[in-house]
Amino acid sequence: MTSPTHSSGSGAPAAPKPSLDHLRNQIDAIDKQLVELLAQRRRVVQQVIEVKQQHDLPTFHPAREEDLISARRAQATQAGLDPDYVEDLFRTVLRHSRVGQLSTLSRRGTRPGAKVLIVGGLGHMGRFLATWFRQSDYDVRILDRDDWPQVGSLAAGIELCILAVPIDITPAVAAQIAPYLPEKCVLADITSLKLKPLEAMLKAYTGPVVGLHPLFGPATTTMDKQIVVVCPGRDLEQCQWLLDQLSLWGNVLVETPAAEHDKIMGIVQALRHFATFTFGQFLYSRGVPILRTLELSSPIYRLELAMVGRLFAQDPDLYAEIVFATPERQALLKDFIQSLQQNLSLVERGDKAEFVARFREIAEWFGPFSEQAMRESTFVVEKLVHRF
Amino acid sequence: MTSPTHSSGSGAPAAPKPSLDHLRNQIDAIDKQLVELLAQRRRVVQQVIEVKQQHDLPTFHPAREEDLISARRAQATQAGLDPDYVEDLFRTVLRHSRVGQLSTLSRRGTRPGAKVLIVGGLGHMGRFLATWFRQSDYDVRILDRDDWPQVGSLAAGIELCILAVPIDITPAVAAQIAPYLPEKCVLADITSLKLKPLEAMLKAYTGPVVGLHPLFGPATTTMDKQIVVVCPGRDLEQCQWLLDQLSLWGNVLVETPAAEHDKIMGIVQALRHFATFTFGQFLYSRGVPILRTLELSSPIYRLELAMVGRLFAQDPDLYAEIVFATPERQALLKDFIQSLQQNLSLVERGDKAEFVARFREIAEWFGPFSEQAMRESTFVVEKLVHRF
Repeated sequence: MTSPTHSSGSGAPAAPKPSLDHLRNQIDAIDKQLVELLAQRRRVVQQVIEVKQQHDLPTFHPAREEDLISARRAQATQAGLDPDYVEDLFRTVLRHSRVGQLSTLSRRGTRPGAKVLIVGGLGHMGRFLATWFRQSDYDVRILDRDDWPQVGSLAAGIELCILAVPIDITPAVAAQIAPYLPEKCVLADITSLKLKPLEAMLKAYTGPVVGLHPLFGPATTTMDKQIVVVCPGRDLEQCQWLLDQLSLWGNVLVETPAAEHDKIMGIVQALRHFATFTFGQFLYSRGVPILRTLELSSPIYRLELAMVGRLFAQDPDLYAEIVFATPERQALLKDFIQSLQQNLSLVERGDKAEFVARFREIAEWFGPFSEQAMRESTFVVEKLVHRF
Repeated sequence: MTSPTHSSGSGAPAAPKPSLDHLRNQIDAIDKQLVELLAQRRRVVQQVIEVKQQHDLPTFHPAREEDLISARRAQATQAGLDPDYVEDLFRTVLRHSRVGQLSTLSRRGTRPGAKVLIVGGLGHMGRFLATWFRQSDYDVRILDRDDWPQVGSLAAGIELCILAVPIDITPAVAAQIAPYLPEKCVLADITSLKLKPLEAMLKAYTGPVVGLHPLFGPATTTMDKQIVVVCPGRDLEQCQWLLDQLSLWGNVLVETPAAEHDKIMGIVQALRHFATFTFGQFLYSRGVPILRTLELSSPIYRLELAMVGRLFAQDPDLYAEIVFATPERQALLKDFIQSLQQNLSLVERGDKAEFVARFREIAEWFGPFSEQAMRESTFVVEKLVHRF
């Protein structure tokens, strides 16, 4: 396995290569130094965490991370290394550092010992929230369907009441619970539409109110970087401890007026899901041989088809709720179908020039997002290729 | 942002923490050393490759890799680092090193020295193929637009002629080159439709013919696991060395009759791209605030939007070609628009029950693919969350 060793510095015309063993020892020495540096880095990060805790600074600093990555990419290129490879490594280092900071921080409660009532606490999201609050030392109580006779004692002394019930009964439940809420208790909901539930909560209750929309499901194992949309209702400063708790768990909070939230969710959820539904429906109606098309697919189409298939692995009632939630959404979908209709003549004429002209117009509108989209999707496609 | 700096070593009871800026500089210095070590490692690995090539030793040495990982895990544990984290990093380092070694090896030719003529060799795909064949020690000649006067000498003694010209001129170019091809020379094309070009090649030339459709573009840096569709024309066994060469480069070959290929590509390419185009167009026509929707997006929508943005980062002419390639494709797109139209009344009525019924029907048809799709898309979404 090893090549013969030679004494170094001989005057032979073709200098002998160092032996494999010798090279491997060099690699081991380098790897050892790598781990030493990682341990050193970890210690410095630990100091950063302490400073941040003292000054109440946020854990995650996206701009700082991007600067760091850019600097390492540039250095890699100069050193003749593949910058994507170096970025890949540093993303892992940064994620680890972030998760480490979170696990130190996330167990802490911003108001430990406070009494929290979760209405609908036996549903999926209710259970999920109960676990997180309990881990951070809150006194969690559950009020589900059968617990209304005990509502008085359950709600006694609570500082937070979260409605985790289906959207269609949220207004009624808000009205039902409101009389039992102590003064200064925060009332929050977690439905995927915000205007109506928020109105109902504000009408039923005169204390602090906030609408939350967690953009993740109960199967999530970490809250790291998960988005929660925050729609202010009343006395937001009194709800701040709750928002701080979510941040501490790793959530990214995005504050938005309820009307804007509902409008954007029409696009993000209703329209997108509907478009995906219609594509799946068309494949079905033509009897397209899915598995055969996958064999003949580039990774990007494979991923696109996975997004379609994914939809149909989920709960149809949930999607029906999202798609047909409001008259505005139905109007949006109608517009979408009609806008497609406008492409019919383009297709019938096979008018390439017109297609190209429209394409360029849209591309210009998308602007720099296209490049970013290209980078992101290429990244995931490569992950997919190497995984499966 | 920075806390005031203090002189160190003071006897104050609570020792002042170093400032955040100072700590960040320390982290940057450590990160810089990490990249330097990676570059150093790379150089040593390069020497290992040379020794291995001299002694014909295998690239991949599983036991050596596992030893290395075990040593680093042990070191990590001693240094108070998470060993899984350190293993994760070193797996990436090792994979990168392996792929680097593979790219050196894949340069081997199955028929080194053979003369290969690439017609349209100055186009993007032409250049791309020329590079790969040259790296594997083929004698590559280029015939582009202006080289037809030299066609006789260029084609002399060639064993392979690849047509890498636009699809609309492929039949004419096949007819033009055919008289110059030596007996037993393989004639191949690489267009994204196969029926017509294959017919034209078989008509113009009586020797071995094969239609190829590489499902990747010239920007690809590795052929590892990339799919090439193979449509047999004539004397496939005489084309075997070419197919073996593609396999050696890492390509996955999928054999398909030309008619089936074209039909499936109508779905995989034309329909999917068209659907994506119409979605982008609708966002544009509504003036949807893309960046704001991203802030309010779950990772899965972020990825879906990335797929849309990705399209518009690319060449519109290429997409026009794909979308309007044949009358059959135009008929397919027309059907698609009309099938969407059928959903209009569903939307207008807001008929949730009907939506759910259709959904279930489609879900059943998708069958086990849905679960697989869920797994794959969840995997990439997690990668995406941790990356961006």
